[in-house]
Amino acid sequence: MSHSLFLLPGDGIGPEAMAEVRKIINYMNSALNTGFVTDEGLVGGCAYDAHGAAISEEDMAKAKAADAVLFGAVGGPKWDAVPYEVRPEAGLLRLRKDLELFANLRPAICYPALASASSLKPELVEGLDILIIRELTGGVYFGEPKTITDLGNGQKRAIDTQVYDTYEIERISSVAFEMARTRKNAVCSMEKRNVMKSGVLWNQVVTETHKAKFSDVKLEHMLADAGGMQLVRAPKQFDVIVTDNLFGDMLSDVAAMLTGSLGMLPSASLGAPDPKTGKRKALYEPVHGSAPDIAGQGIANPIAMIASFAMCLRYSFNMVAEADRLEKAIANVLDKGIRTGDIMSEGATKVGTSEMGDAILEEFKAL
Amino acid sequence: MSHSLFLLPGDGIGPEAMAEVRKIINYMNSALNTGFVTDEGLVGGCAYDAHGAAISEEDMAKAKAADAVLFGAVGGPKWDAVPYEVRPEAGLLRLRKDLELFANLRPAICYPALASASSLKPELVEGLDILIIRELTGGVYFGEPKTITDLGNGQKRAIDTQVYDTYEIERISSVAFEMARTRKNAVCSMEKRNVMKSGVLWNQVVTETHKAKFSDVKLEHMLADAGGMQLVRAPKQFDVIVTDNLFGDMLSDVAAMLTGSLGMLPSASLGAPDPKTGKRKALYEPVHGSAPDIAGQGIANPIAMIASFAMCLRYSFNMVAEADRLEKAIANVLDKGIRTGDIMSEGATKVGTSEMGDAILEEFKAL
Ligand SMILES: CC(C)[C@H](C(=O)O)[C@@H](O)C(=O)O
Ligand SMILES: CC(C)[C@H](C(=O)O)[C@@H](O)C(=O)O
Repeated sequence: MSHSLFLLPGDGIGPEAMAEVRKIINYMNSALNTGFVTDEGLVGGCAYDAHGAAISEEDMAKAKAADAVLFGAVGGPKWDAVPYEVRPEAGLLRLRKDLELFANLRPAICYPALASASSLKPELVEGLDILIIRELTGGVYFGEPKTITDLGNGQKRAIDTQVYDTYEIERISSVAFEMARTRKNAVCSMEKRNVMKSGVLWNQVVTETHKAKFSDVKLEHMLADAGGMQLVRAPKQFDVIVTDNLFGDMLSDVAAMLTGSLGMLPSASLGAPDPKTGKRKALYEPVHGSAPDIAGQGIANPIAMIASFAMCLRYSFNMVAEADRLEKAIANVLDKGIRTGDIMSEGATKVGTSEMGDAILEEFKAL
Repeated sequence: MSHSLFLLPGDGIGPEAMAEVRKIINYMNSALNTGFVTDEGLVGGCAYDAHGAAISEEDMAKAKAADAVLFGAVGGPKWDAVPYEVRPEAGLLRLRKDLELFANLRPAICYPALASASSLKPELVEGLDILIIRELTGGVYFGEPKTITDLGNGQKRAIDTQVYDTYEIERISSVAFEMARTRKNAVCSMEKRNVMKSGVLWNQVVTETHKAKFSDVKLEHMLADAGGMQLVRAPKQFDVIVTDNLFGDMLSDVAAMLTGSLGMLPSASLGAPDPKTGKRKALYEPVHGSAPDIAGQGIANPIAMIASFAMCLRYSFNMVAEADRLEKAIANVLDKGIRTGDIMSEGATKVGTSEMGDAILEEFKAL
């Protein structure tokens, strides 16, 4: 059985964070015989510098062929003025679309050791564990027309199009219901059905899917603006949240910030299971961005990238015990008071990217 | 000079809150000779029940003719199943569109007496004073096509369209820059230019408008998802935020919740000044909704509605001293520990809707 990993470290702090994952892969291969085979490519600004595109055709082909893609981060001020079609984000969006990674899983968990780092009162976030399921290949991100037209007289018109078909809503809500069954069995679906036709259809299809196949799961509907409010007011009321691409972008960022653990949150983007092999295409990436301001200084927090690799172990290779162990290693290191600068607090021990990676690896070995 | 007010109390707690504003209007007319002339209509579910539409043509005509519209709230479970075209929100959306109320001003302020009611740590919200300027007549709320099509095979396709023209972005950003000049002189513009063409145009036009006419104001650009995060992380970094209709809906609700004063926040929706008279069409409404769960019990908080009337005094009638006085009356009543149930805290005096309105009016008289 193949265990191929395609690494796309990207820009900014991406390569530094990825280096720490590489240490864990190497250790697992030598000590646990996991047989991971890795290859590496370019995405984002560095790909633009090398090929004039945010990802080359060759690297796209490798990403498609791999069992899983590990993605760092893209973008930075250096590429702020490059044409829209080849901006760094275009590489990520193409990977999501061409690999059909429609289901984006974004856990928002609050590490107990970091509850006080949240801007929310600690009692509101302690023990927080939400899973946001964001639709990732549809909606306003990819709908056509998507244009800027010159109308003359100094006027331009910009158009973006939000499009959702029944099957897209059905498959993403099915993922949400299935995930809920492994958790607290509750799904909250968010849209703006009072303003958007796509919200009306979203609401209908989620309701029908629930009735047809998942009526054992608790289902609630919330308007997306009220959902944003409730996330800030009382986040622990949620278990699984399912929402569209753009609302998911906004709401998952708010949820991530609530936890006080922004530099620590991973994500998984999954495709449909292959009808023959049952395998899903998959990409794993930290929720944080490329943080160009601190890139290259060896101070970035690699935990989100390492936790993304833990999700990879769980969802792409069914190595559940190893995933649990890696997540436990992260929590233990935090409990010991080892901190990168972004999560530093009084009395803790401040370390750099590489020391944090080493500490997690040592803990992983010892567990 | 005419001083005509058209009152649309709407559904749920709307009528109860509006009754408290009426007391203030009556007092001002008798004691201060303000000469307000009021008329009243139906909007939302109650208009649907009466006429089968979310607002009648007659009431639309009255709203257009009035100097200002005071709007309560619309909607409730009773009307959840009415057809999309006549749902309660359609009345509000039609008022915004037909009166061309493109500039929605949503102050997010934290009343000192309520800082501890926020879910954020008090030091992050004490003294918070943000003004969100939301574009209100464009974007995905009104763009065409906006349809659900049957594709056969049990599949439907829903489409919403985000459209922005140069002039729409120019006029809303001009309002933001002008407002900033009366405050801390800083504007943050939020969009998703990395994903949306409307975000690209938004960013360009705001930048050009700034350069051409407002270069004395500090301007920053932020991606809307990062903006949501920053609002939760460190809201006091913002002075004026300008953003599109949908992002404005989401971000202003998050900001409102941060203040701990959700039941207290007003909004103003303004049109362009008439070239001859300089007058702007205007609608004033609380940020909170119709709260059907507590409607009719006399316990709703009328402060957001009263504060909306204070904005009306300020922006529609240039009664700046009276507006200041009314806002001060609200703050004083809170300082005295008088509270409706939604903002109740230990040691405070719990009152109903009408007592709260009376307390504010008494304070207003005394100031
Ligand atoms: C980088 C950007 C295109 C992306 C998005 O908007 O989806 C990011 O914000 C995310 O949430 O993964
Ligand atoms: C009631 C609804 C149509 C409205 C909106 O989405 O604009 C509300 O949420 C608001 O923010 O005023």
